[in-house]
Amino acid sequence: MSAAPKKVGIVGASGYGGAELLRLCAGHPDLEVRVVQAGSHAGEPVATHTPSLAAAYRTLVYGPTDAAALDGLDIVFLALPHGRSQSLVPSLVDHVGVVVDLAADYRLSDPTDYPTWYGETHTSPELLATFAYGLPELHRSELTGATRIAAPGCYPTAALLGLAPLVEAGVLDVPTGGGAPALIVDAASGTSGAGRAPKENLHFAAVDEDFVAYGLLDHRHTAEMEQGLGATVLFTPHLAPMVRGILATCYARPADPGGLTTEDAMQLLRDRYADEPFVVVSDAPPSTKSASGSNTAHLSVRVDTRTGWVVVLSAIDNLIKGAAGQAVQCANLALGLPEATGLPVVGVYP
Amino acid sequence: MSAAPKKVGIVGASGYGGAELLRLCAGHPDLEVRVVQAGSHAGEPVATHTPSLAAAYRTLVYGPTDAAALDGLDIVFLALPHGRSQSLVPSLVDHVGVVVDLAADYRLSDPTDYPTWYGETHTSPELLATFAYGLPELHRSELTGATRIAAPGCYPTAALLGLAPLVEAGVLDVPTGGGAPALIVDAASGTSGAGRAPKENLHFAAVDEDFVAYGLLDHRHTAEMEQGLGATVLFTPHLAPMVRGILATCYARPADPGGLTTEDAMQLLRDRYADEPFVVVSDAPPSTKSASGSNTAHLSVRVDTRTGWVVVLSAIDNLIKGAAGQAVQCANLALGLPEATGLPVVGVYP
Amino acid sequence: MSAAPKKVGIVGASGYGGAELLRLCAGHPDLEVRVVQAGSHAGEPVATHTPSLAAAYRTLVYGPTDAAALDGLDIVFLALPHGRSQSLVPSLVDHVGVVVDLAADYRLSDPTDYPTWYGETHTSPELLATFAYGLPELHRSELTGATRIAAPGCYPTAALLGLAPLVEAGVLDVPTGGGAPALIVDAASGTSGAGRAPKENLHFAAVDEDFVAYGLLDHRHTAEMEQGLGATVLFTPHLAPMVRGILATCYARPADPGGLTTEDAMQLLRDRYADEPFVVVSDAPPSTKSASGSNTAHLSVRVDTRTGWVVVLSAIDNLIKGAAGQAVQCANLALGLPEATGLPVVGVYP
Amino acid sequence: MSAAPKKVGIVGASGYGGAELLRLCAGHPDLEVRVVQAGSHAGEPVATHTPSLAAAYRTLVYGPTDAAALDGLDIVFLALPHGRSQSLVPSLVDHVGVVVDLAADYRLSDPTDYPTWYGETHTSPELLATFAYGLPELHRSELTGATRIAAPGCYPTAALLGLAPLVEAGVLDVPTGGGAPALIVDAASGTSGAGRAPKENLHFAAVDEDFVAYGLLDHRHTAEMEQGLGATVLFTPHLAPMVRGILATCYARPADPGGLTTEDAMQLLRDRYADEPFVVVSDAPPSTKSASGSNTAHLSVRVDTRTGWVVVLSAIDNLIKGAAGQAVQCANLALGLPEATGLPVVGVYP
Repeated sequence: MSAAPKKVGIVGASGYGGAELLRLCAGHPDLEVRVVQAGSHAGEPVATHTPSLAAAYRTLVYGPTDAAALDGLDIVFLALPHGRSQSLVPSLVDHVGVVVDLAADYRLSDPTDYPTWYGETHTSPELLATFAYGLPELHRSELTGATRIAAPGCYPTAALLGLAPLVEAGVLDVPTGGGAPALIVDAASGTSGAGRAPKENLHFAAVDEDFVAYGLLDHRHTAEMEQGLGATVLFTPHLAPMVRGILATCYARPADPGGLTTEDAMQLLRDRYADEPFVVVSDAPPSTKSASGSNTAHLSVRVDTRTGWVVVLSAIDNLIKGAAGQAVQCANLALGLPEATGLPVVGVYP
Repeated sequence: MSAAPKKVGIVGASGYGGAELLRLCAGHPDLEVRVVQAGSHAGEPVATHTPSLAAAYRTLVYGPTDAAALDGLDIVFLALPHGRSQSLVPSLVDHVGVVVDLAADYRLSDPTDYPTWYGETHTSPELLATFAYGLPELHRSELTGATRIAAPGCYPTAALLGLAPLVEAGVLDVPTGGGAPALIVDAASGTSGAGRAPKENLHFAAVDEDFVAYGLLDHRHTAEMEQGLGATVLFTPHLAPMVRGILATCYARPADPGGLTTEDAMQLLRDRYADEPFVVVSDAPPSTKSASGSNTAHLSVRVDTRTGWVVVLSAIDNLIKGAAGQAVQCANLALGLPEATGLPVVGVYP
Repeated sequence: MSAAPKKVGIVGASGYGGAELLRLCAGHPDLEVRVVQAGSHAGEPVATHTPSLAAAYRTLVYGPTDAAALDGLDIVFLALPHGRSQSLVPSLVDHVGVVVDLAADYRLSDPTDYPTWYGETHTSPELLATFAYGLPELHRSELTGATRIAAPGCYPTAALLGLAPLVEAGVLDVPTGGGAPALIVDAASGTSGAGRAPKENLHFAAVDEDFVAYGLLDHRHTAEMEQGLGATVLFTPHLAPMVRGILATCYARPADPGGLTTEDAMQLLRDRYADEPFVVVSDAPPSTKSASGSNTAHLSVRVDTRTGWVVVLSAIDNLIKGAAGQAVQCANLALGLPEATGLPVVGVYP
Repeated sequence: MSAAPKKVGIVGASGYGGAELLRLCAGHPDLEVRVVQAGSHAGEPVATHTPSLAAAYRTLVYGPTDAAALDGLDIVFLALPHGRSQSLVPSLVDHVGVVVDLAADYRLSDPTDYPTWYGETHTSPELLATFAYGLPELHRSELTGATRIAAPGCYPTAALLGLAPLVEAGVLDVPTGGGAPALIVDAASGTSGAGRAPKENLHFAAVDEDFVAYGLLDHRHTAEMEQGLGATVLFTPHLAPMVRGILATCYARPADPGGLTTEDAMQLLRDRYADEPFVVVSDAPPSTKSASGSNTAHLSVRVDTRTGWVVVLSAIDNLIKGAAGQAVQCANLALGLPEATGLPVVGVYP
């Protein structure tokens, strides 16, 4: 902490991800926000737009989106809607120390996945291979000292943290062709994952006391889960009447029916994450509220010998471990700081 | 309506199911509440305990639980916690016109299911076969004129309305042994399903902004779903931060992979429920809020040819179609009244 | 009920007030919806726009706003944003049996109040005196057989039902000049009162877990309260994180300090509302949830001899007693039907 | 930070206040939790009882309440229900460095207030004068280096921060006798202020979608507000359907009617709090959500020349600035640490 703080820029700073990055940077001893950009709110004080930030940013004003104004910064976080990062990144990557993109623009390594799942051809496919996938618990070595990082989606973060250790250990019957029984990821999310822009289906009176599925069969995060697991995934997201939190309830078949127990699977998770500061493996089913306000994932697993299914449960705060917190965790690794610096491990409860 | 109203008794009237029965009876032209019993609140005015009922029941007082006081009534609703109906029913069935039990005591036809799923031997197994299963859309003929009715559980109501038509039509690969891929019912419920008694996990500050699974692998309603579908079911319920509503998201494999389309499955549901006043089959994913406050179930279905799964979605109000409303619907059938009398088909929105 | 049902039209039918009118009409034995108009949703099926209505209105489609299409109807409800009724009413009043306007356009009898509180000159001030104020408990005689009715605002309904009996009885020190201590109405409302159009401050993630005052010192409903009470009112509304419900907590000074007790004031309310089907006076503080889903107002009052203040509490469902339900109550009076026909007295609890 | 961390004990650690203290200590560089006591949960791991704390306290176990086990600690926080601190404090004050009591036991300087407002005679009235009142913005000098601190109640914190500067400046007509118009504090709180023990009125299904007043005329915090302002206060608390947050909407008469403007009053607040890290004075009405998750109070004020009232608005997080955060702020002052150490100034939004 004796070193000079790193100079930080945040693009897309007026959204929920941007606000969370500003909050985390305010409590981070080695990061100092120098530039905040928000096209739609340029000229507006941060404290007026998001009063929760007022005490830390009493005079800061959003600037317009402008790559040149970021030149020379140590690290730039991009918290833009999908597709917008592609227009900034090519002119940014060589002018700042580290780029952490919170959107999906550089998450998928196969360029053909973009037209399939995102409906558009990627405009800088040559850069895809230069980005590290920002899930430290699964990709720490590639992130240490990295300069280009694609922070994962919120749903994939939850699903991969729960399923990847079991897939890697070979205890699941992993389908790759689609014909065999797929992995099923059934998840519920708070509405903050859908962004800050007002929409009919995110109106308070529409969401409150409602639970509904959306993105049936074709949600974009499916591709990211399939890439991370090397397997076919059926993904069903739901919107829950809460602001933050994702719970992924995942279903898979054991590779050896009858040969895997709940104890085995639990031990496998405990061993895999024994040294991770941001993972808790618990006997009790994890709840989103336990994770809320923290960068910590809570996991559990059950094996049902009666029906022959493995059920994996994973809870995170979608805006922290699923977005801004994980981005800062990656930034710490990229900048050579202790990985947990400035990040809350404890949730805000109740 | 020119006939004298039917004399109604409600036992367990101080809980949420009892309150909902009182509400529905207040608006029902042919039912008149004569006796309300609530052991824990005997002597207390209904209007004090549940002020929402005050305008309709300005002087009514809960009496103690007492079978003799119900003698001669046209119909008695039992809204007791599981296991308590068994002690009342044997002395009740021949002294009142119709008994509608809202608990699980007489839902399962196989007595051995009770020790397995409910942890206790049934005390009047000889009566099990005399009860009709109160899901009118699937068992109307047995309910018309019936005198003993076991109203279904909330989760089974949602799951069965969605899955049964597809199972009956033979389009699903239905597992019965447990070795084959089971039907999966992944559901979320509001907290009212857990009853009115204060508990730590139902405290407002614990539930609000939380989403969590519970009853993993062994929830009691599994037995009722398996009985209704003739198939093995893996059931994962979740508690959602809302008061009312159940959404069941069900996963099954098609009997003929590649041979079933979303259009086929939708048409099958539409045809099956074409004349049902309390079922809506919609293209859009059903939301619990659309069903809330009504006796109506909202259904939809998708077939994913990419992964080979069928996804069935079913939304109900757990206290109405999943409890008190369905009980009144059954009562109407039992008493020879038009089936929809006094029941709301429209949800309270927003 | 042997008579032919009355032919109903609803203008502005796609908003929350419109949906609630459609719900109440679906359960009303003497009203039959013939025409629904919604400029912004013309051509869309009601069942698609508001699935909660689907089971009752399986084929109904919103038409465009068009006075001519309403010609000859027995009753027309206008559920438009403020200011829009003024353009329809002049061409409507002589062509339909009864007009019930749910907006503020014809609530204030003094035309100069419109520029002061609503920022615009009234375009048909000559009609103001022809409208009855639709608060049956306080203006029943003018409403019986009326043909033009201005249904009150949600906040004024709550405040007037609580305060008017005490003002009328002369037990409050009522200020008319502004110099003396004013009546204070401090109220909290669910968000449905702000309408169905998406807005930043009504976004789920903005409202949930938030409590905030708005409209400080100059909320439009102030004028309506002052008109109804003949007194100066300071009104502070708050937005509460809930969908429905208004609680008004009102502060006034007794006319005779030391001479008024809580018992006196409670008795005064009980006497005044002894025969009202839609008012409950309770010892316990009224809660919005007790009123939710019903057309019933819940009232209580305290006199604090220590500080010399009277506290009046009033809870209603803003969309029912504060809007659509009260409109139907007025319609029943206007059409010569029993006043409570088709209206719920019992709240949906929990 | 080079100094050894201070040894911390927390009594009553299993409640909401205790959990928040544990969370704040986990992120505080100079505090180290050595002892946690919780009578009702002795022997249970913190991580099991409150999983949100699991990642920071993987092995910590609650001990039984036991003053001897706290001997020699640098600082002890008491987070017990009211009345329980009195039995511990006398045997504690000379054996630990600093005692911070979060209950009301040592807040009131006049012992006769305890039987009046709390219904019980104080058992160690001789200690009352030895406690400093822990509201740093108003009592900083007494708190610096203090060894016995009574942290304020949540409602008084909100009300005093808003009203005290105006009272001190002499711009309000402050009543002391009760005959003149009292100050009115009308406030809404989230349910966490009522504690973690399950109760009927705090059941999720009872609170959700409900807004209700409680503690009419005689809430205990009235005494603390009156002590802090030197004036008669009428206090009306409400329970809002949210977990955290208090908004106090306060009404007072200006000392010089017509002589005070909104601009004057706003400037007065801005000047008073210009150097405070944990106060934001904003033009917009403060919202509880802006304060949630932070130790920051958000304030605003309006003067209504039309009706002659001043309206002061104050929003805090009841568990942080209204409890645990303020306790840590006091602890920092007592221990000679920078006042803001380890405390969040930014709220968790959304």
